[in-house]
Amino acid sequence: MTTTKSFNVTGMSCGHCEAAVRGELAELAGIEEIEVSSASGSLKVTLSEDAELVDQAIVEAVDEAGYQAERVQ
Amino acid sequence: MTTTKSFNVTGMSCGHCEAAVRGELAELAGIEEIEVSSASGSLKVTLSEDAELVDQAIVEAVDEAGYQAERVQ
Repeated sequence: MTTTKSFNVTGMSCGHCEAAVRGELAELAGIEEIEVSSASGSLKVTLSEDAELVDQAIVEAVDEAGYQAERVQ
Repeated sequence: MTTTKSFNVTGMSCGHCEAAVRGELAELAGIEEIEVSSASGSLKVTLSEDAELVDQAIVEAVDEAGYQAERVQ
């Protein structure tokens, strides 16, 4: 069973920003799907089964892209 | 003597957008310097001496990047 983690991301303004976030997340192991929207400032990361990816790793990847992420729910 | 052409550019929202515009303009011959600001929506293109670069080529390059440019002054 997969797990989806949701984050609020501040600072994204366009599709390039979304691509930058995707690019950084792509370097992490264990991600099955990424939904990111600059319009709503939302990020949903679906982890593959058995993935061990802590929130902090996702937050740091988003930070590398130049934005601030905060886990929601 | 160099010539500088100024344009208003609509649609840019961040540094990635500026980079996209720079990337497209980099494909044109005859440009010595580019100043582009998403904050002010401005673009200044300085042509090298003897360059023969028409406004339309610049407008089309900006269009390729996904934005609208209009010559000013």
